[in-house]
Amino acid sequence: MTKAFATAAYDALMAFQRQTEALAQISGRLGWDQETMMPRGSAEQRSEEMAAIEGVLHARRTDPKIGDWLEKIEPVDGEVAGQLRLIRRSYDRATRVPADLAQEIARVTSFAQGIWAEARAQDDVPTFLPMLEQVIGLRRQEAAAVAGGRDLYDTLIDDYEPGASAESLGAMFARMRPRLVALREAVLGAAHQPAPITGAFGAEAQMRMSRKLAAAFGYDWSRGRLDIAVHPFSSGSGDDVRITTRIAESDPFNCFYSTIHETGHACYELAIDPDYRLTPLGQGVSMGVHESQSRIYENQLGRSRAFTGWLFGQMRERFGEFGITSADEFFGTVNRVAPGYIRTEADEVHYNLHIMMRFDLERALIRGDLAVADLEGAWNDRFAADFGVAVDRPSNGVLQDVHWSCGLFGYFPTYTLGNVYAGCLHKALRESVPDLDASLAEGDPAPATDWLRENLQRFGGLRGPRETIAAACGVEPDEGPLLDYLEAKFGGIYGL
Amino acid sequence: MTKAFATAAYDALMAFQRQTEALAQISGRLGWDQETMMPRGSAEQRSEEMAAIEGVLHARRTDPKIGDWLEKIEPVDGEVAGQLRLIRRSYDRATRVPADLAQEIARVTSFAQGIWAEARAQDDVPTFLPMLEQVIGLRRQEAAAVAGGRDLYDTLIDDYEPGASAESLGAMFARMRPRLVALREAVLGAAHQPAPITGAFGAEAQMRMSRKLAAAFGYDWSRGRLDIAVHPFSSGSGDDVRITTRIAESDPFNCFYSTIHETGHACYELAIDPDYRLTPLGQGVSMGVHESQSRIYENQLGRSRAFTGWLFGQMRERFGEFGITSADEFFGTVNRVAPGYIRTEADEVHYNLHIMMRFDLERALIRGDLAVADLEGAWNDRFAADFGVAVDRPSNGVLQDVHWSCGLFGYFPTYTLGNVYAGCLHKALRESVPDLDASLAEGDPAPATDWLRENLQRFGGLRGPRETIAAACGVEPDEGPLLDYLEAKFGGIYGL
Repeated sequence: MTKAFATAAYDALMAFQRQTEALAQISGRLGWDQETMMPRGSAEQRSEEMAAIEGVLHARRTDPKIGDWLEKIEPVDGEVAGQLRLIRRSYDRATRVPADLAQEIARVTSFAQGIWAEARAQDDVPTFLPMLEQVIGLRRQEAAAVAGGRDLYDTLIDDYEPGASAESLGAMFARMRPRLVALREAVLGAAHQPAPITGAFGAEAQMRMSRKLAAAFGYDWSRGRLDIAVHPFSSGSGDDVRITTRIAESDPFNCFYSTIHETGHACYELAIDPDYRLTPLGQGVSMGVHESQSRIYENQLGRSRAFTGWLFGQMRERFGEFGITSADEFFGTVNRVAPGYIRTEADEVHYNLHIMMRFDLERALIRGDLAVADLEGAWNDRFAADFGVAVDRPSNGVLQDVHWSCGLFGYFPTYTLGNVYAGCLHKALRESVPDLDASLAEGDPAPATDWLRENLQRFGGLRGPRETIAAACGVEPDEGPLLDYLEAKFGGIYGL
Repeated sequence: MTKAFATAAYDALMAFQRQTEALAQISGRLGWDQETMMPRGSAEQRSEEMAAIEGVLHARRTDPKIGDWLEKIEPVDGEVAGQLRLIRRSYDRATRVPADLAQEIARVTSFAQGIWAEARAQDDVPTFLPMLEQVIGLRRQEAAAVAGGRDLYDTLIDDYEPGASAESLGAMFARMRPRLVALREAVLGAAHQPAPITGAFGAEAQMRMSRKLAAAFGYDWSRGRLDIAVHPFSSGSGDDVRITTRIAESDPFNCFYSTIHETGHACYELAIDPDYRLTPLGQGVSMGVHESQSRIYENQLGRSRAFTGWLFGQMRERFGEFGITSADEFFGTVNRVAPGYIRTEADEVHYNLHIMMRFDLERALIRGDLAVADLEGAWNDRFAADFGVAVDRPSNGVLQDVHWSCGLFGYFPTYTLGNVYAGCLHKALRESVPDLDASLAEGDPAPATDWLRENLQRFGGLRGPRETIAAACGVEPDEGPLLDYLEAKFGGIYGL
């Protein structure tokens, strides 16, 4: 085979791929529209539109031309190798799943989300369980088609975090757990407890502050926008990456830290090398690495003593008096630890305990070690054991998260992996930028976001997830830095 | 061939078609997003996304499977015949245009719009002319591929108004012209001239009033939304039809009547039989019929003495005093006739003169009777002759409309055709609902919009454009009712 021949095949493959990525961006933007702009009466038609574009995407992702091109292209290094690795991976995976199974999964999970939303609103577990049973059955079938003998749950994890496994994640969680539990107990037993925030904070003023926060963290408004959604998210890649936040008048931190979190996701996408736009390399490499960016923006930077000192001043200016009178007290309030039912509202100490519980439960569900009929009981028992509180109703328990209704099994552990990665990155960042707090205290995280852009974000999917973190940090990632950071931070706040 | 075989082919064709329509809706929604929500830095990526989905649509519209299915299906009547007629028409037309020509047109017109916008902003005709030359050349090539010996301009008109021709439109315009010119001269020479509106009208209050107006005209908020755009438009079919308006603080009528106009377009789409959703019948049948709906909502209903009487009260409540002290005076102000450069801001007397001028110029361009280099001169001469005013700058003249840069030749005459159809419908409506003014005077056009829904809108593409109007009116449409209406209305206002 001549070199020119292989180059022509690569060019043809990439042109094809580029259009597929463009169509995938369109599909993503429809998702954004659905959560922010779509009239409520348009849902049924929208589901047909989504099915149509998903049909086009699936046909393209399994197009035999891809296989032909891949055969003609010789092995190479660098960026081209990166593109080919991701294309091959997607093609292998997509072609192993029968088209009718893929369509059935799309159909059932779309439907199941509606059933779940209704069940959650009514606190009605029995209505949801048959749907969940069906979703699990379909995802198991899909995993079996892809697995080639591997563990089914590992196969699902691989969708979100290539290279991770239940065994390695489970071992890491087991190492983390004792230190987290000990920290939790110490914090909850401490004599000094920060006050919660009280008062009412106007929606428009919250949005104005949110815009300022997104800008401070480097969000490029010329390539994005901020809207309100029930569940905040970031959406899109390349030059159109939109974020959303939510408003609760009694809890401005919900809005502000949702904004900073989604800004982290969006800045990652926006920072990727423009040469990778609309190519496989042009997206965040995994859910875990993505979450490391949102989490380090939100927690290690946004909830730091230095940055909250600046935020305290901003809030006093914008909202007047609100019962908290010093920046130190405010730092405690922002980081207040309290057992709560809801994962998305959890503090940094409790958050990973929520994840570990879901990881164990969903692994057992997928492996067939836990029956769907027993899920609620298992959830409630585990929650009581881990959090010391009885679940009061299913919407605060097993029905709280959308993930399982969407078939997102194997997704939850990437949240804690993201926290762990954020811990590693934060350690390396502090070593590289020793005077970071001086900037943060002025409301300017740029030295941190510049470092992340330069050392991690711009590479997109060029390296694997773990390799991406290791390259940025200079060492292999592990859970140590996160736990050290949590113990130091909360030890300080709670005077341990 | 068995009947079951033909039915199976029809079902397969319609299932395929349904997905194509769903993808076309997605493409339309991207257009909406581009004009209302898209960040400005996303334009380049968006053009790739649009090209990708247009590529998918073109491939589907020319898919040889459609030809195979059409061959297997036996002739039938009713709705099925309507679907087949539109599918056959689209397939015949799409397959006659070479794929690379279609792509080139998409690419060049997308680019030309940017050049036009820049040229208009700079009042720079020479920069735009080479682009226009290229666009015209491509559209002529396309028309030649489709025409099969017919006149090229007719072939282009047929894209927007099936069945219409330059000859029949030209003859109708020639009949209209003397009465319009005479009316214009009488009105401008009248002793009594209504005052223009003066003052400043807050943007938020204008939007609130706009929402009330859209609701009054029957807009279904559960399947639509109202946003702001530079050039107002309506977008979408089926259960997601969105409208836009614009705000000028000194001219609230611009906002209000843009809203009512787009509400007319949207209500047409929303009223189409739900069984036709995402099928070829499930859209307004032509641009002319579409414009008849927007125009009758805007002018014959919205600018009527009865409705403006109600609107006057609303505006006094919302904006306080604004210099106009009686409902009769207000009726004159809303309908004030004044020669102006800009088509989209023209009163009912001048509007069709703007169109006739564009019709003659673009027909000459397409036929090769007018060189692009001579277009500006021809425009300015004609404008001075028809409007008695010299064009002061290109952005008020030949560069004012986006249409030609998009390749929309043959589109302009459908605006006047829409006015003519609105005149016919209005006459029939007044005969069917003799006490309509009583409702309009209370701000309630429902008896009119109900009549239009029942007699026209719900049928979508079931009949041809002219047949659609004729069926609603009970007589063949002609220009008489529009001219009678204009002479009566403006004769009254100006005391002729």
